[in-house]
Amino acid sequence: MNAPLAAYDRLAARFARIATVNEASSMLGWDAAAVMPPGGGAARGDQLAVLAGLSHGQLIAPEVADDLHAAEPASEWQAANLRLMRHAYIRATALPADLVEASARAGSACEKVWRESRRVSDFALVAPLLADVVRLTREAAAALAPALGLSPYDALMDGHQPGISTADVAPVFAQYEAFLRDALPGAEARQAAACEPLPLPGPFPSDVQEALCRRLSARAGLDFSHARLDRSTHPFCGGTPTDIRITTRYNEADCATAVMGVLHETGHALYERGLPASYARQPVGEAAGMGAHESQSLIVEMQACRSDAYLSWLGPELHTAFGGPAEPYAPANLSRLWRRVHRGFIRVDADEMTYPAHVILRFRLEQALVAGDLAVADLPGAWSDGLHALLGIRPPDDAQGCLQDIHWYDGAFGYFPSYTLGAMAAAQLMAAARRGVPELDAAMARGDLGPLVGWLRAKVHGVGSLLGFNDLLHAATGKPLDPTDFEAHLAARYL
Amino acid sequence: MNAPLAAYDRLAARFARIATVNEASSMLGWDAAAVMPPGGGAARGDQLAVLAGLSHGQLIAPEVADDLHAAEPASEWQAANLRLMRHAYIRATALPADLVEASARAGSACEKVWRESRRVSDFALVAPLLADVVRLTREAAAALAPALGLSPYDALMDGHQPGISTADVAPVFAQYEAFLRDALPGAEARQAAACEPLPLPGPFPSDVQEALCRRLSARAGLDFSHARLDRSTHPFCGGTPTDIRITTRYNEADCATAVMGVLHETGHALYERGLPASYARQPVGEAAGMGAHESQSLIVEMQACRSDAYLSWLGPELHTAFGGPAEPYAPANLSRLWRRVHRGFIRVDADEMTYPAHVILRFRLEQALVAGDLAVADLPGAWSDGLHALLGIRPPDDAQGCLQDIHWYDGAFGYFPSYTLGAMAAAQLMAAARRGVPELDAAMARGDLGPLVGWLRAKVHGVGSLLGFNDLLHAATGKPLDPTDFEAHLAARYL
Repeated sequence: MNAPLAAYDRLAARFARIATVNEASSMLGWDAAAVMPPGGGAARGDQLAVLAGLSHGQLIAPEVADDLHAAEPASEWQAANLRLMRHAYIRATALPADLVEASARAGSACEKVWRESRRVSDFALVAPLLADVVRLTREAAAALAPALGLSPYDALMDGHQPGISTADVAPVFAQYEAFLRDALPGAEARQAAACEPLPLPGPFPSDVQEALCRRLSARAGLDFSHARLDRSTHPFCGGTPTDIRITTRYNEADCATAVMGVLHETGHALYERGLPASYARQPVGEAAGMGAHESQSLIVEMQACRSDAYLSWLGPELHTAFGGPAEPYAPANLSRLWRRVHRGFIRVDADEMTYPAHVILRFRLEQALVAGDLAVADLPGAWSDGLHALLGIRPPDDAQGCLQDIHWYDGAFGYFPSYTLGAMAAAQLMAAARRGVPELDAAMARGDLGPLVGWLRAKVHGVGSLLGFNDLLHAATGKPLDPTDFEAHLAARYL
Repeated sequence: MNAPLAAYDRLAARFARIATVNEASSMLGWDAAAVMPPGGGAARGDQLAVLAGLSHGQLIAPEVADDLHAAEPASEWQAANLRLMRHAYIRATALPADLVEASARAGSACEKVWRESRRVSDFALVAPLLADVVRLTREAAAALAPALGLSPYDALMDGHQPGISTADVAPVFAQYEAFLRDALPGAEARQAAACEPLPLPGPFPSDVQEALCRRLSARAGLDFSHARLDRSTHPFCGGTPTDIRITTRYNEADCATAVMGVLHETGHALYERGLPASYARQPVGEAAGMGAHESQSLIVEMQACRSDAYLSWLGPELHTAFGGPAEPYAPANLSRLWRRVHRGFIRVDADEMTYPAHVILRFRLEQALVAGDLAVADLPGAWSDGLHALLGIRPPDDAQGCLQDIHWYDGAFGYFPSYTLGAMAAAQLMAAARRGVPELDAAMARGDLGPLVGWLRAKVHGVGSLLGFNDLLHAATGKPLDPTDFEAHLAARYL
């Protein structure tokens, strides 16, 4: 074995070890959210911190730099893997340990106060702590930027969706803003002219919902010999590619949250399950970023499972499960009920047309915070003005304004764009899938996502991180990120 | 801070880190047994192996030897902690890495074949693999013995119950063998003269059993804000002191397995919950070995919960939970039903009087295997002869003989004595608790184990590993391990 190959192999073994430790953390994170008794919280925090430290220590060990320098890849996949290893190493070593620790402490302290601050809707309570978080975030961005050759804000966004920069996002968001100016009033007018949807009567017993959700998820392609469905306050998809853990919550008065929530998490889960097994536990075998991940949850939930075709199959399934009168479960009613546009204050409750406005607002505000162009004290006013410019409404209080999301208070900047990158990519991928797989809608009308998932396995899941976000989209759809397909999707559905 | 103190503090921080990694492994072990989908098994094996490697690596790091040499304890607890750290370091460094790996591989290969071998009751199938395991175990024992200053077999036993040697166990077991020679026929004669117990009618729905078991465990003192009760094929107590996970299995035709099984695991759980919190994650804050642990499960299950007092409370509780005729739940019937002696072939099904005979047999056979005095090929015959000498019966086949237990095939030698050390210690502790807490039985007759558990917290749980097994017994009961109390307990219950 020659030296360059040995260096690559040593790195591959090291990154596999790191990924395996991270798998353990992921399982413990699921446990904490889904089953842990409350008294286990303190010890769990220690366990996750120690594992994170061990994982980080493995990544920044001095011999890694030598091996990264010496390694010679033997294939396109190895070359991509090595690039991603270098990228991970640069991100891990660019930040001084005391800054990482100070940021973690500041985020944790701020997040605690934020909960109270949001509860009483008093931004002033948390403002000094958020100022600390922003200051440390700016320091981190300034340290990461030169190491990565990116602007400070892009260096933060790179931590969530690598390969995407402000230069990609800003024009796309500007185009969407222009689209929304006409499309939203149009959709509202059309909605007002149509008849009011009938509510689903309910009640929806939790265990009936759970059995139904498990069946829908399995029918959508999730293999429960490698997955579990459990309950948690905040739904998520965790675990590892061969042991996926998705969660949801059940509202006995409304089954939409759980049904569409589980299908959303199933999209995430199918991505993880479909990652290239031969590069498992290697950077190139991982999902291609949070935007890519969101594209997979949204293509299942928003593109496929809220389509007329799928709802025409789902309506009778729901009726069989829950009983009662049949009319509310008629596909046309279900479409009207589960696809409504509404100018609201809360991002997580937003429909797919107004959701990007919430993201665009946050994208612009966090850019300004990181650039130092917006003081934390001025955030509530800037939020209100920004939302008004985008949706024509102003939040009645900060709890429904700049206090609604945990992200910034927890130290996550540069994350928000991923949501809308995912929504746009989902529409772009769906359009390409429809071109490539003619029987797609006919299958969905039988509740069968098989043709769609098969196409996604080949074009997205199985590609791992071989390609960056835009290259992946280009290879799958013939063009880089482009909001046109998303706009066409919205126009077809709402206009 | 002076250098010796710094060395101790460094060690304490290191051992805390090691313990925290081991906590993560413990949680993942629970997950694998209780909730993991089958497809997660391979990845889980990797996760546990990597964590074990990281934990081991922390323990054998070169600087540990220097700190162990330099450290000066500032208290009795620190002195004990340092002794246990040295002991752990010696055990971890005495074995060459390739021997550890070869043993793990041989045990894993042998255990797989053992399952098939037991299924078809053909010892010859697994014999060559067991011979490998025995050979590597003898090598390991030979490497550990001089490092620990113990005989080879005692070095193995030390891995499960430190501080106990053949010199302690052999005479105690010999005394018990002599006791059994008269006591067993006496108990059988008394049993034959009494009326046959009525079986509990059943059925016992799993969810009713589960709710009852949770209630019994909580009433016995387990705080479910720090614990869970779940289901697994092989019941166990896992997790960590602030996040205990106990499991059981439910047989809808017989509630005894789950009810008594959960109370048994509750005894283990209360021990973990009661360990000294100020020495959490330090060797001195851990349980004092597997024999000590078994004493705590057996004092709750066998001494307390099968007592006349507790059964007089439990009978009506069971009747309320399961309904049907009341007579079978009468305390006198329950005593006859759940306290029967029987000369059987299977250890795990044995009553408390014959159980030690199964252990004595294994203790003698594994001593001979480790000493090289017994060839693996001769094991079935030696087993049959040994059981006949102890209980007057011979197994009809090897599945009910030397193939019944996983331990040896999995590479665990020196473990079996812990079961009976625990049973004897439980009786000895119960006798002392009765002397120290006069209201013990009156409380148990109300289903209240509070006075017993309070005494155990002070005398056993809160002591951690400050004292060795015999010193702990001496401090709690006024004498080292002595089978007399166990014999007196059996005489009172069965003769």
